[in-house]
Amino acid sequence: MHTTSQLIDMALAEDIGPGDITTDHLIDPEMEGNGQIVAKEPAVLAGLQIAREVFQKLDPSVRVASEFKDGDHVSVGAVVLSVQGTLRGLLTGERTALNFLQRLSGIATHVRTYVEALAGSSVRLVDTRKTTPGWRVLEKYAVRVGGGRNHRMALYDGVLIKDNHIAACGGIHKAVERLRNETSHLVKIEVETSSLDQVKEAINAGADIIMLDNMDIPMIERAVEMIGDKALVEVSGNVTLKTLRALADTGVDIISAGALTHSAPNVDLSMRIEGQK
Amino acid sequence: MHTTSQLIDMALAEDIGPGDITTDHLIDPEMEGNGQIVAKEPAVLAGLQIAREVFQKLDPSVRVASEFKDGDHVSVGAVVLSVQGTLRGLLTGERTALNFLQRLSGIATHVRTYVEALAGSSVRLVDTRKTTPGWRVLEKYAVRVGGGRNHRMALYDGVLIKDNHIAACGGIHKAVERLRNETSHLVKIEVETSSLDQVKEAINAGADIIMLDNMDIPMIERAVEMIGDKALVEVSGNVTLKTLRALADTGVDIISAGALTHSAPNVDLSMRIEGQK
Amino acid sequence: MHTTSQLIDMALAEDIGPGDITTDHLIDPEMEGNGQIVAKEPAVLAGLQIAREVFQKLDPSVRVASEFKDGDHVSVGAVVLSVQGTLRGLLTGERTALNFLQRLSGIATHVRTYVEALAGSSVRLVDTRKTTPGWRVLEKYAVRVGGGRNHRMALYDGVLIKDNHIAACGGIHKAVERLRNETSHLVKIEVETSSLDQVKEAINAGADIIMLDNMDIPMIERAVEMIGDKALVEVSGNVTLKTLRALADTGVDIISAGALTHSAPNVDLSMRIEGQK
Amino acid sequence: MHTTSQLIDMALAEDIGPGDITTDHLIDPEMEGNGQIVAKEPAVLAGLQIAREVFQKLDPSVRVASEFKDGDHVSVGAVVLSVQGTLRGLLTGERTALNFLQRLSGIATHVRTYVEALAGSSVRLVDTRKTTPGWRVLEKYAVRVGGGRNHRMALYDGVLIKDNHIAACGGIHKAVERLRNETSHLVKIEVETSSLDQVKEAINAGADIIMLDNMDIPMIERAVEMIGDKALVEVSGNVTLKTLRALADTGVDIISAGALTHSAPNVDLSMRIEGQK
Amino acid sequence: MHTTSQLIDMALAEDIGPGDITTDHLIDPEMEGNGQIVAKEPAVLAGLQIAREVFQKLDPSVRVASEFKDGDHVSVGAVVLSVQGTLRGLLTGERTALNFLQRLSGIATHVRTYVEALAGSSVRLVDTRKTTPGWRVLEKYAVRVGGGRNHRMALYDGVLIKDNHIAACGGIHKAVERLRNETSHLVKIEVETSSLDQVKEAINAGADIIMLDNMDIPMIERAVEMIGDKALVEVSGNVTLKTLRALADTGVDIISAGALTHSAPNVDLSMRIEGQK
Amino acid sequence: MHTTSQLIDMALAEDIGPGDITTDHLIDPEMEGNGQIVAKEPAVLAGLQIAREVFQKLDPSVRVASEFKDGDHVSVGAVVLSVQGTLRGLLTGERTALNFLQRLSGIATHVRTYVEALAGSSVRLVDTRKTTPGWRVLEKYAVRVGGGRNHRMALYDGVLIKDNHIAACGGIHKAVERLRNETSHLVKIEVETSSLDQVKEAINAGADIIMLDNMDIPMIERAVEMIGDKALVEVSGNVTLKTLRALADTGVDIISAGALTHSAPNVDLSMRIEGQK
Repeated sequence: MHTTSQLIDMALAEDIGPGDITTDHLIDPEMEGNGQIVAKEPAVLAGLQIAREVFQKLDPSVRVASEFKDGDHVSVGAVVLSVQGTLRGLLTGERTALNFLQRLSGIATHVRTYVEALAGSSVRLVDTRKTTPGWRVLEKYAVRVGGGRNHRMALYDGVLIKDNHIAACGGIHKAVERLRNETSHLVKIEVETSSLDQVKEAINAGADIIMLDNMDIPMIERAVEMIGDKALVEVSGNVTLKTLRALADTGVDIISAGALTHSAPNVDLSMRIEGQK
Repeated sequence: MHTTSQLIDMALAEDIGPGDITTDHLIDPEMEGNGQIVAKEPAVLAGLQIAREVFQKLDPSVRVASEFKDGDHVSVGAVVLSVQGTLRGLLTGERTALNFLQRLSGIATHVRTYVEALAGSSVRLVDTRKTTPGWRVLEKYAVRVGGGRNHRMALYDGVLIKDNHIAACGGIHKAVERLRNETSHLVKIEVETSSLDQVKEAINAGADIIMLDNMDIPMIERAVEMIGDKALVEVSGNVTLKTLRALADTGVDIISAGALTHSAPNVDLSMRIEGQK
Repeated sequence: MHTTSQLIDMALAEDIGPGDITTDHLIDPEMEGNGQIVAKEPAVLAGLQIAREVFQKLDPSVRVASEFKDGDHVSVGAVVLSVQGTLRGLLTGERTALNFLQRLSGIATHVRTYVEALAGSSVRLVDTRKTTPGWRVLEKYAVRVGGGRNHRMALYDGVLIKDNHIAACGGIHKAVERLRNETSHLVKIEVETSSLDQVKEAINAGADIIMLDNMDIPMIERAVEMIGDKALVEVSGNVTLKTLRALADTGVDIISAGALTHSAPNVDLSMRIEGQK
Repeated sequence: MHTTSQLIDMALAEDIGPGDITTDHLIDPEMEGNGQIVAKEPAVLAGLQIAREVFQKLDPSVRVASEFKDGDHVSVGAVVLSVQGTLRGLLTGERTALNFLQRLSGIATHVRTYVEALAGSSVRLVDTRKTTPGWRVLEKYAVRVGGGRNHRMALYDGVLIKDNHIAACGGIHKAVERLRNETSHLVKIEVETSSLDQVKEAINAGADIIMLDNMDIPMIERAVEMIGDKALVEVSGNVTLKTLRALADTGVDIISAGALTHSAPNVDLSMRIEGQK
Repeated sequence: MHTTSQLIDMALAEDIGPGDITTDHLIDPEMEGNGQIVAKEPAVLAGLQIAREVFQKLDPSVRVASEFKDGDHVSVGAVVLSVQGTLRGLLTGERTALNFLQRLSGIATHVRTYVEALAGSSVRLVDTRKTTPGWRVLEKYAVRVGGGRNHRMALYDGVLIKDNHIAACGGIHKAVERLRNETSHLVKIEVETSSLDQVKEAINAGADIIMLDNMDIPMIERAVEMIGDKALVEVSGNVTLKTLRALADTGVDIISAGALTHSAPNVDLSMRIEGQK
Repeated sequence: MHTTSQLIDMALAEDIGPGDITTDHLIDPEMEGNGQIVAKEPAVLAGLQIAREVFQKLDPSVRVASEFKDGDHVSVGAVVLSVQGTLRGLLTGERTALNFLQRLSGIATHVRTYVEALAGSSVRLVDTRKTTPGWRVLEKYAVRVGGGRNHRMALYDGVLIKDNHIAACGGIHKAVERLRNETSHLVKIEVETSSLDQVKEAINAGADIIMLDNMDIPMIERAVEMIGDKALVEVSGNVTLKTLRALADTGVDIISAGALTHSAPNVDLSMRIEGQK
């Protein structure tokens, strides 16, 4: 939330700087206007509150309304957000509000297609740390809005032991043991594996979660069998809409996909604005 | 530049926060390592200096080298950047460095395909303000790296009179005249038009640049003819790789495309890291 | 606007720091008062909104009123601003509000005398980048309030090719050409010249604006004649109230003067405050 | 010091923003240059270290040298500062460095004339809080460089009881007593008076310093006699170079003058820059 | 005040970061609640306004009430503060509000015991610079709430000449003289002494305040006698509740004790919260 | 780490502000000195790196050395840290460095006594969120240095379901289930209980950790027996050095104690400084 407000400030600063030279010279500061943000393609909305804040920062008396809330699916032509206030505020804030809303709704819409492809499965679809720098909290929020779940937020709130960690401290067993002793008792321990030998080691080391990295389907199936209910199983790597169902059918608990955030296309929205006489 | 450094700080703060709990507990602070960022698909590189800064902020003594520079085209398997320093610094900075590099190189690579599609034409391909909030300067830089040019940076450094401005001050003529009088003499005045009548008005008002918004090819051709060398002509709207050549052939001076930034897919890069004994 | 708010915060922080030890110990926080800022000499007002903000930051419930607006000319004794609120807020904010108002009104008043000396002429009087560090946007605003116009805001929003740039890239022609190709098409290109040979080169290079730097009147007249309507003509250097008219009569389009900002004396204002029983 | 660095950052940000579009396109980043800041009029220098920092922020490898130090008096033509580094850094930093140096040296030079007018007198010449918002610490530093002394830095480090404070708490006696009890024992208590009755009250209340505000010379003389060595005596109001000596001759201890900071004209300095082959 | 708001922001940021994962998932954002902060031991309250601000930052519509004000003594079971607002705001702000209130009330309560031990004495009990980094203004405020007084706020608003200063500039006399000449006339000069010879020197140098550092009672008594009313006398070092009375009885003017801030135990407070149906 | 640097800046800013008026006027900026921080009582050190940074921020060329590292136990008289640099830097940084070092070492020393009281037991001693606002990361670091472990860092990285959460969402079972579904799979779920009925509910709900809040020893023993190895068991409330051993002997896995941070007395350290000829 803190980051969000900071990011809105940065966005307005970078777009307005010392002033909107077109609008400031042509539009009377008293003049009122109203605007509607309209969907140009079907979308799952995310970021309505941020768009609202953009306009409010420029014109504290602006009135923003919407019949939708984040997570709603809208059709082409739907009025996503209505804004009434100074015409200056509307014209100056339009692009920044759209830039936020198009990206976040883009992620939510993209995630929703993945979630629908998993309909009926109990597998948990989660994001990764492959997010736009500065946007971590926002993009992870959009993933949840779309129906996905979050993996760890960042390096500080989850343990994920990778091959380099294992090599550096002499094996999976030692790595798990050291973390079990030294980190908070509230945190589960996940180990990344790329072979069945490593899976076996991770099981024996008492990992809470075992990640199967870039394995093919038969190997995943064998791993799932080996692990049973001794740990949660996560698959990662080459997760696309096409492979999703097959991965889910292997019996894994969790599927993580960087594509949820890094490959979501922006949703097409536009704003029409009208000055009031 | 200021914004870049701030954005790197935000990115590291959001990813590391109070600490990388896995790496901090498993990797000795003295331990050295080296890493290579490798291209997993062909790409035009952008952001090498930022990736360098990410590692330097975490480990001021790190050594970063590359045989490439921004704008270079690399093939699959190319070692984009080599990093040598504390293993902790490498492991903790990896994701943030990649997140920057993949997005900026993604834009440069995307723009390059547009530029190549215009080979032989004298038309100028420019970006828009449809950039990721907080990333304006970086994304416009990546457009230049890819071979595109920049439209105005923001609302403060260029005049673009749109329909709302025109309506609010009583016609194109009055809008151009007022801006000519009140803004700096260093700034050109661009008017957005959506009909040939508006084009005529803009010519008569003495606009320096006339934007043809969302017109079809025949209409653009008539506008170009009407305008002659009385103003620069820019087209905007529905610019894709497919329509690009036809638009250029109409004789316009400038083509602007939001897709250069908002629809560029990330480039696939990965980092391999090895601890040193 | 962003900078303004930051500057008000800095000003209050540097003047109040951990607290106004006189007022905080002697004045009851509930006690109300009212104050009037009064002109001690004739002035053109600038900065009323900033003075208002200073008091509002110290006491959000303060009521500030004025029968004047920025740009108005006031006589000795005029009540420039009336303030009603907590006596603490008035006493603590007085000096900072005056420091802003006296400086900005000083610039507006100073510029107004220049503007009046140009009465009847169509020449455009503009400022320079010789402003107080941290005050660029505010001082340029005060210039406009006084009736002047702004040259470029800063290095980012206008091109001005000086002798060093010319020397470094091999002549005026090459410099203009390179900038025409590489910067935004929205920006005009100005070239600084100090001889008639350079003027000729600038004309041939297609400069949009030619600055005549530190030339004498006869030389300026010859330059104006040579340039005709091929470019706008700006004179700079040794511009004072005395030389102003003669410079305007040469037929130049623009006169720029650093003195508008760097040599404007503060206007004398004072505040009388009264506690309410 | 903290404020200084922040102010330099603000100054560079407001002047450069997303980039110096002229220099960045015309000057090769590797190209070296050297520059000299030269005095165009006699001056007392102040701010050399700040000018140095401006260039160092733009180019950490820059070499800055001067045969002078703050407080030195220089003649026309003196090379105040020599700078050697990237030509880009020199061209981009020139204006900001000069803006700082011209203002601070302006104050130091102005103060020096006052100090010289007091030659032979033991009176202490001090500044006020009438400084440019954001520049308090810098301008007070320039006053010391010029040979003046500082009054309180701000509202937090000195007690000055004015008429409103007196009215609000029922007389000078009560005001002094309350502050003596409640503030730190390290702080002296100054009372502002505008009549001899008030002077008498201040003496009886045990004020450490008595300010005589806007009194004429005979009245000041009587006040000085009444006070004797029971308190320090400060005069304030209408202090100019002309009245200075007569005020000093009344036997007061301290003369405070807002004009030291708010009416100091900038010193004329310029920078010549040359690119190196 | 500035620092306080910054510290509250830091405290909330460090405790909430990207979100309160328990509360955000379990408590409906619309749900209301009320809470009472209750004293678990007798206490002198300090920081009520800060606790209020913590809740207001999380929920601007929260209603906070108290029948007490800072400085009031409360018994076990007293309801120190009542809060009504969103249940989320209460649960998320609880710990931060308590952390502020328990520490500041801890200092006020601790100081009060010292003040009561001095009942009837005219000696002034003051704090030191031994405060928690980041908390200087707050802890000094709590000292005043408890009935103590403040020594200098920091290095910028009071002069205290210590042995190193004396050694470096050649004796107490020279040090006092130089400071008398160079610092503001509003500031008193205090000299730290550790022997009767130094006390004599300080008297002769005209120090305004003489600090007796770590002397025993008989030595303090001799120093007090030597000094008479030529300066204020402060004792420092080994000040505890036990030694306090004896030190006061020596006739010193001021007793300073780092223990007021650095050894004050937190007061035990707790918050009970209830959701509303 | 980010917070630490910010806190050091705040600490220096609040202590130095516009300047150390004593040192700046008496000590030549070129003068060198050396200092030793010495233990006045036995201590476990924590914060050596922060003390180093304080001096480095004031004098980048300072040399700081220590034969100890954080976590080392030192005796009375031990030289904890040696510093060599400008005398100004030493004198100005002394208090801030000590204020950090005394508090952090205070916590480490305090925690060590608890850890030693648990010698031979496998129970894990952890801290709470009862830390000084702004100091969370630092104080939790000092706990680890003293030999304790950390509970969750903050509200964002650990789930702790309290009575209000339970009441608001209709029972322990529902609360655990909802969090299991909605938060990251990497996070364990802890439930706070105050009766054996609640313990039973928590077991059935599948809580990973069950906190026994303020229970007496017999009740804790029964809870431990009920829980077996179905969850980790944490006790909280009234944990003191006296009760510690008895609590550990009940067989619980974790003991959490706010006193580790909120009741740790500062360690007594002092600095001796000497100027060099």
